[in-house]
Amino acid sequence: MSDSLLAALTAAVGPAHVLSDPELRAGYERDWTGRWRGDALAVVRPADTAQVSAVLTACAAHDAVIVPQGGNTGLVGGGVPRPGGRQVVLSSARLNRVGEVARASAQLSAGAGVTLATAQRAARDAGLELGLDLAARDSATLGGLAACDAGGLRALRHGTARRQVAGLEAVLADGSVIRRMSGLLKDNAGYDLTGLLVGSEGTLGVITAVRWSLIARRDARAVALVALDSIAEAVTLMRTLRPALPSLEVCELMGRTGIRLTLAHLGEASPLPDCAAAVLLECAATSDPLDELATALDAAGAGERAVVAADASGRERLLRLREAHTDAVAAAGVPHKLDVGIPLERLAEFADRLDGVVADAAPGSRLVVWGHLGDGNLHVNVLGPAPGEDAVDARVLELAVACGGTVSAEHGIGVHKVAALRLSRSAAELHAMRAVKRALDPTGILNPGVGLDPRDGVTDVIPATGGCDIS
Amino acid sequence: MSDSLLAALTAAVGPAHVLSDPELRAGYERDWTGRWRGDALAVVRPADTAQVSAVLTACAAHDAVIVPQGGNTGLVGGGVPRPGGRQVVLSSARLNRVGEVARASAQLSAGAGVTLATAQRAARDAGLELGLDLAARDSATLGGLAACDAGGLRALRHGTARRQVAGLEAVLADGSVIRRMSGLLKDNAGYDLTGLLVGSEGTLGVITAVRWSLIARRDARAVALVALDSIAEAVTLMRTLRPALPSLEVCELMGRTGIRLTLAHLGEASPLPDCAAAVLLECAATSDPLDELATALDAAGAGERAVVAADASGRERLLRLREAHTDAVAAAGVPHKLDVGIPLERLAEFADRLDGVVADAAPGSRLVVWGHLGDGNLHVNVLGPAPGEDAVDARVLELAVACGGTVSAEHGIGVHKVAALRLSRSAAELHAMRAVKRALDPTGILNPGVGLDPRDGVTDVIPATGGCDIS
Repeated sequence: MSDSLLAALTAAVGPAHVLSDPELRAGYERDWTGRWRGDALAVVRPADTAQVSAVLTACAAHDAVIVPQGGNTGLVGGGVPRPGGRQVVLSSARLNRVGEVARASAQLSAGAGVTLATAQRAARDAGLELGLDLAARDSATLGGLAACDAGGLRALRHGTARRQVAGLEAVLADGSVIRRMSGLLKDNAGYDLTGLLVGSEGTLGVITAVRWSLIARRDARAVALVALDSIAEAVTLMRTLRPALPSLEVCELMGRTGIRLTLAHLGEASPLPDCAAAVLLECAATSDPLDELATALDAAGAGERAVVAADASGRERLLRLREAHTDAVAAAGVPHKLDVGIPLERLAEFADRLDGVVADAAPGSRLVVWGHLGDGNLHVNVLGPAPGEDAVDARVLELAVACGGTVSAEHGIGVHKVAALRLSRSAAELHAMRAVKRALDPTGILNPGVGLDPRDGVTDVIPATGGCDIS
Repeated sequence: MSDSLLAALTAAVGPAHVLSDPELRAGYERDWTGRWRGDALAVVRPADTAQVSAVLTACAAHDAVIVPQGGNTGLVGGGVPRPGGRQVVLSSARLNRVGEVARASAQLSAGAGVTLATAQRAARDAGLELGLDLAARDSATLGGLAACDAGGLRALRHGTARRQVAGLEAVLADGSVIRRMSGLLKDNAGYDLTGLLVGSEGTLGVITAVRWSLIARRDARAVALVALDSIAEAVTLMRTLRPALPSLEVCELMGRTGIRLTLAHLGEASPLPDCAAAVLLECAATSDPLDELATALDAAGAGERAVVAADASGRERLLRLREAHTDAVAAAGVPHKLDVGIPLERLAEFADRLDGVVADAAPGSRLVVWGHLGDGNLHVNVLGPAPGEDAVDARVLELAVACGGTVSAEHGIGVHKVAALRLSRSAAELHAMRAVKRALDPTGILNPGVGLDPRDGVTDVIPATGGCDIS
């Protein structure tokens, strides 16, 4: 690294928080799956918003670019440096102050580096809770969750991060700070810059703080696991149950391969008979939802195929089967992870066609599918192909789009799906996105290589599907 | 109007739908309050998205600009032409096709010109309903509600339009069409252009269709009207009731002047004893919420000061008192309407200081205040000053910001609050908004004069307040 950049970064954040030694940098330079990695000139850990701004200014002055990183739990390579390039990783780890819980508005203010688990505890201590949860809760940060518009297990009921972020503070490419942290439920003074930054994967600004909407605490929970003969049956069950169960907030799908792999990984016996697919349901309410859940399952004709748990240990055991899928797959190799969203009407068709597509593109590979059934969000994991062999990725994403879906439901585009973005977005949309990117980051200092294709003129794209002209 | 522009517009939408006669144009050239008016070269009424695109192309070729107009129910002059300029009003009246209700995703697809009331009927016919309601429901259109991020009566529970718009289609300044109508609950493929257009008041694109999220139909309702001694008491009551009443979805505030004015306008006797303020509450559920409401009122010590209604006619009578405020004020003159959002913690302070500020800026005027208490959203109406006398407007907005609030909660900026926007937004935010505007509408063809100050370089602005640096 040039001495002058090092000096500028050191001036910005202090010598203890500029990591230039390769050993110290290593954990920031690769993602946890091992699929994405690169080299950074340095990792910097600013302590506050002014330091973040100073880091951006220093990088701009020394021709380096910024890779913002939260908990490094992303799955599309957007939070680690790319191979080559003058990159500085900006870690939010020290932006970790938990602010007040505003009870009147039911909102939590927190630094971008506060982990989801920490925020969940703060909310619960105040008699409230977050509407967002996912397995990476101990590492994933609120800033990262906002930047990637995370979804997770409870989006069915509470929406994704976009719906929950009541405001944020961010440093823009020019080092200026935008701030909307008053938490007003209604604020129509100007464009929704907050919403634009949510889901922009660090390419439009570095989020430094968030104000997160909380929900009423519901401590009464019931969980059911239902054995089914097909994914089509699972979709039908979900569509039957949902209107009958206002307390439903988790509706997850698991396929046979994933269930077997995960049970073996956990060393546990199956709570269900062997089945092609299983659906995990969780209801949450202020009073015990077990009867409501059991009645709805009976009415749907699924009561006899369900295991139900209301006590904490029973619930945890059932939930663990779903949550441990990620670890079980990671333990089996470096997976290709494709995160797609499919309209419910065509989800079973997608699943049916997926086997053939994967077998054709990656012969001998192992296909593991699970996901957030209620959202039409499937996580397609393929074990076998080397990390750089992308053929199966492209084919799976093409199939998703052919079924009216999106190439990214909740993981984002990162570096992984840059070429695939044009499958889901029309030339007009890509052109508009590129114009927005150029407007807010004219020199391309923020997370270059993530999200949009580096080619400036977007031409020769495949028309987007899934639209409907209703007017 | 130049013959060549007329010819181009006629080619775009057909001769029957280019209104250039002043009498035919008149209803489109002024808002219903009578405060905002201007002159258009023509009013065009395209029938579909392609025609909208053709209208934009024609205007761009002939140096004219577009003023998009929905139901013309806006209150900040953003939907009618400005005085002077080569303006074409683009009415969405014929983009009025109601599409399917997708039951699996609980979403309605509709043209931008479909009125809220029509959409509400379509949703109810499908066993669902909209989470949005406001008094202008028979005129306000879904496209306009989305473009202005409308709030209304039920935002307390269901959020504003932003939270309910699951997708949209729009024509951008260059005539290209962006479309995100698949209704996927999760779709993180690229920037959220949908969210950016929501609340942009027709300055970034012309919305041509929307996909609106619906909610489960709840037909059991109960209404209460509570007499209180002050606005501070009203805030306390709301904060007490809200956690105790999950079914609460309307919480409205009315002041003494407005109550008296409205009762006189309706020719009705008051359902309450004379009081400084009244709070209107409505609960909605699948089973009768009357007991829950009455119990919560008793627990809050407000039972004896409340009138409660569960039958339809009783509910309507209580709701009418609030809803008729707008008409009652309009019948009394051309009001100055200021729509502000204040954090609940400081709402009573704002109301206390408001009397003095208005009396000082507009001596002899009549101040009528009501609003969406649950959202901290107050509608400040001042009767007396001529439409062009803006002193009181500026003073009220300054007070809102001094109390940590916003200059626009739900009405938007329009032409009315262009100068006031800088009270709520920092130089960095205004700079970013302007960059976004230039990126998507480089020639300024879309609703010029609305939202942002026409000066290109934004300097010398008052720092935004209400932020908090949590990092």
